[in-house]
Amino acid sequence: MISKRIERLINNNSVIREMFEEGKKLKLKYGEENVFDFSIGNPSIEPPTKVNEAIKKSLNINNIHNYMNNSGYEDVRKIIADNLNKKFNTNYNENNIVMSVGAAGGLNVTLHSLLNDNDEVIVFVPYFMEYKNYIENFHGKVVEVSCNENFEPDLKDFEQKINPNTKAVIVNSPNNPSGIVYSENTIIELTNIMKKKEEEFNNTIYLISDEPYREIVFDGIEVPYLTHYYNDTIVVYCYSKSLSLPGERIGFISVPNNAHDFDKLIQALSISTRILGFVNAPALIQKAIAECVNLTCDMSEYEKNRNVLYEGLVNCGYECIKPQGTFYLFLKSPIEDEKEFCKIAKEYNILVVPGSSFAKPGYVRIAFCTKTTTVENSIPKFKELMNFISNR
Amino acid sequence: MISKRIERLINNNSVIREMFEEGKKLKLKYGEENVFDFSIGNPSIEPPTKVNEAIKKSLNINNIHNYMNNSGYEDVRKIIADNLNKKFNTNYNENNIVMSVGAAGGLNVTLHSLLNDNDEVIVFVPYFMEYKNYIENFHGKVVEVSCNENFEPDLKDFEQKINPNTKAVIVNSPNNPSGIVYSENTIIELTNIMKKKEEEFNNTIYLISDEPYREIVFDGIEVPYLTHYYNDTIVVYCYSKSLSLPGERIGFISVPNNAHDFDKLIQALSISTRILGFVNAPALIQKAIAECVNLTCDMSEYEKNRNVLYEGLVNCGYECIKPQGTFYLFLKSPIEDEKEFCKIAKEYNILVVPGSSFAKPGYVRIAFCTKTTTVENSIPKFKELMNFISNR
Repeated sequence: MISKRIERLINNNSVIREMFEEGKKLKLKYGEENVFDFSIGNPSIEPPTKVNEAIKKSLNINNIHNYMNNSGYEDVRKIIADNLNKKFNTNYNENNIVMSVGAAGGLNVTLHSLLNDNDEVIVFVPYFMEYKNYIENFHGKVVEVSCNENFEPDLKDFEQKINPNTKAVIVNSPNNPSGIVYSENTIIELTNIMKKKEEEFNNTIYLISDEPYREIVFDGIEVPYLTHYYNDTIVVYCYSKSLSLPGERIGFISVPNNAHDFDKLIQALSISTRILGFVNAPALIQKAIAECVNLTCDMSEYEKNRNVLYEGLVNCGYECIKPQGTFYLFLKSPIEDEKEFCKIAKEYNILVVPGSSFAKPGYVRIAFCTKTTTVENSIPKFKELMNFISNR
Repeated sequence: MISKRIERLINNNSVIREMFEEGKKLKLKYGEENVFDFSIGNPSIEPPTKVNEAIKKSLNINNIHNYMNNSGYEDVRKIIADNLNKKFNTNYNENNIVMSVGAAGGLNVTLHSLLNDNDEVIVFVPYFMEYKNYIENFHGKVVEVSCNENFEPDLKDFEQKINPNTKAVIVNSPNNPSGIVYSENTIIELTNIMKKKEEEFNNTIYLISDEPYREIVFDGIEVPYLTHYYNDTIVVYCYSKSLSLPGERIGFISVPNNAHDFDKLIQALSISTRILGFVNAPALIQKAIAECVNLTCDMSEYEKNRNVLYEGLVNCGYECIKPQGTFYLFLKSPIEDEKEFCKIAKEYNILVVPGSSFAKPGYVRIAFCTKTTTVENSIPKFKELMNFISNR
């Protein structure tokens, strides 16, 4: 008697979340140090100590636990706006910012604000497949665009798939699951296509930039700020990874003044926040992160993990592209059926997620947000696994 | 270019939320003590001191800010289940509980889990009209059932309006906006009708009990626990009012084992929590409220406010029913057009919400979750207002 759509989803529940639960069981059975759980993107680095201090301090604010504006505390939004202005040379104030319940909340609020039934939303393979669920929550249609061998968008395919029903395009760079940062050239070409199509169809096509991993990049690489390339850009950001606060559900949505229908869009985001039942981003944590906008976790551990994992895997004979950011590495499965590979890997207490969960079969995602020792100790296991597969 | 539905909502935005913003402006202009802002249900009583202590203590938990199961921390859910068992003689464990982002989040998750397109959901006038938005988020249809002069459901109208498309019925007692607690007799008759109709249509009809005000009742009145009267009951609870934490967005959904399709329903609630972008209820606050399940705010101030307000208004010649719970009083507008009355009241710096925002024109809602002095000082103003209206 539950919703038919949810019934289908139960039968095909999140592989990642199932592995998260399975990992917990395996760790109980074999001991935490003997399980190589690379399944879920749960940050392994502690939040900066200032975060908890800021939470404690914020407890002293009068009426701290009460309702506020559905878009969030004005002073918090102003602090975030000022910080963005400094970082990206934007010209924001509190009216450009809507606080959100994490990036997942921000994406749902954004899609709820934009979509009419059967509107199309373009995503770039490989992608975080929750996008599909978010889009379908509001009766939108997912349109997948393929990628080249470097996991950058195939822009010819993109150009062919944009049509008058395209309402939005989601970009996620640094990318989950590939770890790739789209180059500035790609962004320029991609947004040029969108500008051309906006003009051709006399339609607004919003670019939704999902940026939970903006702060996790390696080798000093720069992540283009999409608003500089395209006016109709909605940036969805969260502190889940930058401050290691995924369970607290805190982030924000930002929209530049020159986005089409700016006033209505900002009101829509606030109303959607309210009527989807978020009501507002959690109060105490809003105030706390306002004290921490200049901080991120020390990401050097992720970079170290990436180096150990990448070199280790390549030395074992695996094929992969070196991640430029995030805490994911997207490995080519040494056998065609990557789900089969994941099953075999589990025999070695290695938990990785099949690429079909990211619309890219033939690959697996390794989430290296673990202790460095876990990554180090996994390499011999990966080697055994490769030996087993080679000798089958 | 935003969603057409949201565009309509912008043009007809929440009167309550607009007044909340307007109240802030009036207070800046006239001074807080000279504005009688009875617009929004923002608790005026401080949370018990233990809440902030529990938050501080919970900061010491390892990985406290990380992801957990989408349904929430197992230990927190177990503590809540045990507490419900003690209070209501139920037989719950952690598997009966899904933590939610407040009651608004819980209701959206529940409706998302249940509704197919065009499924009908019955609500009882007067009602919190956000229900309409929540139901329409998932393409459900609102069916309104009228009330008698005591603001209890008209059960004849109810029986006529249940049909094979009825998927759920929402009960909100203690009721926003009327302050009425539905009597046990009403609950028995209402659930008997539902049982009969379930059998007649060979359909499950879920009873959704929205209970943010369960703890705010006066004169020792008992609020029936609906699960005892009807198996297919989903209780949505939050700590927004019981612990004065509305901004923190914390609550839970509970389902009894003998509800139809229990296993699927519980999974659906977890999946809906995830894919609507809540992901999980805020982590730190989950742990903190687990330390406070036996506590509520000291509600005596609300009872005092109710007494002062009710007696004061009656003495001024207004008509109303004495609230049995909540912090709302639903006043008969002394002029037919209650929106006009609200406008005139604003001239006296009195902010109240028109009953048409609760599908009951001709009345206004007074939220008396303010300092008692605000209520006391408002009475002479209400008197002036009545004099003005009588002499028009």
